[in-house]
Amino acid sequence: MNPTAAILIIGNEILSGRTADSNLNHIARRLADIGITLAECRVVRDREEEIIDAVNTLRAKYTYLFTTGGIGPTHDDITIPSLSKAFGVAVERNIQVEAKLREYYAARTNAANLRMADYPAGARVVWHGEQFAPGCIMENVIVLAGLPRVMHIMLEAALPMLQHGQPTHTRQVDVWAMESQIAESLEAIQNRYPNLDIGSYPYRIEGRAGTALVARGTNAAEVEAAFEAISSMLAEHGAEIRAA
Amino acid sequence: MNPTAAILIIGNEILSGRTADSNLNHIARRLADIGITLAECRVVRDREEEIIDAVNTLRAKYTYLFTTGGIGPTHDDITIPSLSKAFGVAVERNIQVEAKLREYYAARTNAANLRMADYPAGARVVWHGEQFAPGCIMENVIVLAGLPRVMHIMLEAALPMLQHGQPTHTRQVDVWAMESQIAESLEAIQNRYPNLDIGSYPYRIEGRAGTALVARGTNAAEVEAAFEAISSMLAEHGAEIRAA
Repeated sequence: MNPTAAILIIGNEILSGRTADSNLNHIARRLADIGITLAECRVVRDREEEIIDAVNTLRAKYTYLFTTGGIGPTHDDITIPSLSKAFGVAVERNIQVEAKLREYYAARTNAANLRMADYPAGARVVWHGEQFAPGCIMENVIVLAGLPRVMHIMLEAALPMLQHGQPTHTRQVDVWAMESQIAESLEAIQNRYPNLDIGSYPYRIEGRAGTALVARGTNAAEVEAAFEAISSMLAEHGAEIRAA
Repeated sequence: MNPTAAILIIGNEILSGRTADSNLNHIARRLADIGITLAECRVVRDREEEIIDAVNTLRAKYTYLFTTGGIGPTHDDITIPSLSKAFGVAVERNIQVEAKLREYYAARTNAANLRMADYPAGARVVWHGEQFAPGCIMENVIVLAGLPRVMHIMLEAALPMLQHGQPTHTRQVDVWAMESQIAESLEAIQNRYPNLDIGSYPYRIEGRAGTALVARGTNAAEVEAAFEAISSMLAEHGAEIRAA
């Protein structure tokens, strides 16, 4: 069994509609690459009790929890104190990170930006090559920035520190057909391959109905066999394959 | 107090990284327009027990719950039976919707596409102008499609049936400054306007640090006053305003 994970996106700006999140999709794809099964995602506001509740639920339920957002220098950045309360530990300043921040901000160093050197007591700092504050791993919780550019760097630094599993294999075939025309045959194939996720995703292109049929799983041979079964089924239905 | 809401996004394809969700942002913006406070979002897999658990938690916690995804004709579309179990009611076929589907699919009508006429017993069908199956409202749960184009139509048909509140007002000012330089002054303004959300969102443009400062709330006069306070504070700091 692969390790499992959840993502907790922290930020009023996502729920107010101001910002369209792109971090979920990025993390999802990277986790699939390295064999960690992303099982759930939640988005909560910048409110301590909501963050604590979600952190404690999700870290107990999955191998890993990734948080994004709320780790900057302003009053709405409350991920670190909230996480510390969730774990029942103090907030501690990391003096190596503080030294880096003092070097980076120089004359503009102040109490606000030094807060980015604060971590839950016991957290491991995840160093990366850039000058801004690193993320951290607190037990099984990986703390990442909300800004996508910074999040990507922090995520790549953290992934080698985690347990990897079997990467996900995917085969997809697209047909010019409504998904309802092949629904029953597709279900029969899903039932033959219970370890795989067989998905059906309809769309329209210039008014014409198309469907993407996707087989996903960690066993490459099973994915290939299911793909062959889907292809044969489509041929039996006389469905027109859509060139990718 | 405005009505509150959560969104439940149902679909393996979001968590596998295959599909980047855009429905959260669309619904968030529309709810802000009509004064419904979006407080939480969850993404779960196409698994009955996970859907039931999330539905029952979120419908009890907020005025409204919007679900997206899982209402098509294929085996992975299990939102309606899961929702019915969550409410402890049977799945019932709506004969008016069935008649519409038979007309639309004509010779291609089959058991799979007629499943789109099934609803939890007691749900209100939300009719809209297009030929495909309508969504429904079951008590305080609004059931929407996952396909963005279809979701948008269903959402607009459902919104007039809901309780509206005070729409959100927003004022934003952008500065060429690191957010840490103004963090303490901004927090003081937040403390003076506890009913507003004052947010700080950093970014970089060609290596130069910028920050968007945002005041949001349902009281337009308060939002305006906070915006003026932020602008005065920036002037005191000698911060360079970035033209929008």
